[in-house]
Amino acid sequence: MTRVRMDLFASLDGYTPSDPTPDNPMGEDWERLTAAYAATRAFRETVFGDTSGAGTTGIDNRYAMASVEGVGSEIMGAGMFGLHSFPDDAEWKGWWGDAPPFGTAVYVLTHTAPRPSLPMKGGTTFHFRDTAIEEVLAEATEAAGDLDVRIGGGYRTARDFLRAGLVDDLHLLVAPIFLGRGHRLWDDLRGFELTHKVSTEVAESGVIHVSLTR
Amino acid sequence: MTRVRMDLFASLDGYTPSDPTPDNPMGEDWERLTAAYAATRAFRETVFGDTSGAGTTGIDNRYAMASVEGVGSEIMGAGMFGLHSFPDDAEWKGWWGDAPPFGTAVYVLTHTAPRPSLPMKGGTTFHFRDTAIEEVLAEATEAAGDLDVRIGGGYRTARDFLRAGLVDDLHLLVAPIFLGRGHRLWDDLRGFELTHKVSTEVAESGVIHVSLTR
Repeated sequence: MTRVRMDLFASLDGYTPSDPTPDNPMGEDWERLTAAYAATRAFRETVFGDTSGAGTTGIDNRYAMASVEGVGSEIMGAGMFGLHSFPDDAEWKGWWGDAPPFGTAVYVLTHTAPRPSLPMKGGTTFHFRDTAIEEVLAEATEAAGDLDVRIGGGYRTARDFLRAGLVDDLHLLVAPIFLGRGHRLWDDLRGFELTHKVSTEVAESGVIHVSLTR
Repeated sequence: MTRVRMDLFASLDGYTPSDPTPDNPMGEDWERLTAAYAATRAFRETVFGDTSGAGTTGIDNRYAMASVEGVGSEIMGAGMFGLHSFPDDAEWKGWWGDAPPFGTAVYVLTHTAPRPSLPMKGGTTFHFRDTAIEEVLAEATEAAGDLDVRIGGGYRTARDFLRAGLVDDLHLLVAPIFLGRGHRLWDDLRGFELTHKVSTEVAESGVIHVSLTR
């Protein structure tokens, strides 16, 4: 049974960095927010292609592994793919090079001129959609087969799916830092604990992993 | 050496309930936010005078005990004392009855007409001050002797002391609920982790205890 899942990063004061810019694709605070995660063996291997075995292997790594296991398709916003940073580059293929780490169908939500699908090395194919998120989710669910659909972000896409009640499993990684700026991840989610069971675990790094499961 | 400490309650989405009202002294969401804490043996005994030994005795209880141990004086805002709810009641003596659970000098910050000090049963004396928080803190520190000064709240008082960098030890109790409304506890605290060491522990109740220590 396919589940819709999401992994989000927030600071202790509830912020996620603002939208990417060409100078700073992930936002100025992103590196600090994700430092413990980026240091894990699983993240280094999956995203950086580092098969040396380097990286942390504790609780953070367990969550990093889980975030990529069993994912059959992905949905992300235009900003995360990079269309907001390079709106005029018809050849833009995302931030991840010729062989993106997804290895699945990836549905990019965009309101700009539709683009042809982009098959990449390693099994990733980017599809661009300008329909309601429920429609895109139905297509992504079909593509996922028995596996899960992951909502990759960014902020607006994550908020849209959360507020629409479409997320079954949310993993929130709370870094023990205070950003004091950025997007407020949590507005308008009063009562979320009534539909999702909350559990929390603290990693060796000090990162707080909050899991919300329907 | 006297330290300045504070215990705060927040929801997972970073809210603390809005100011008290006559109908609802602690705010509508307060009971849910503090339920696990109010269930502890230490809280029941200290605040409710329940010496039956009833109440939880786990991690929440350990923090509840620590929050009242070694406190030599207290500072609270006018709203927490009740002056905003009963501005015209010259006889108002706070929410805690004839024998408040403090047992120390308690400095109430108020900008309204000064009131004479109120000696209560059980060693609590309320003093009303209309001076800068640094001056009140100096007086409270003197009164505390070798013990600590606790900043009791409410929201504005807590924020004032936090933003002024006057808090040495902050214990944040994060309830695993989403309030979606109230005061944002964390605005303007960017970099707080640079001056205070952050550690986190999850209680049996699901409550997340975050400690920030200078």
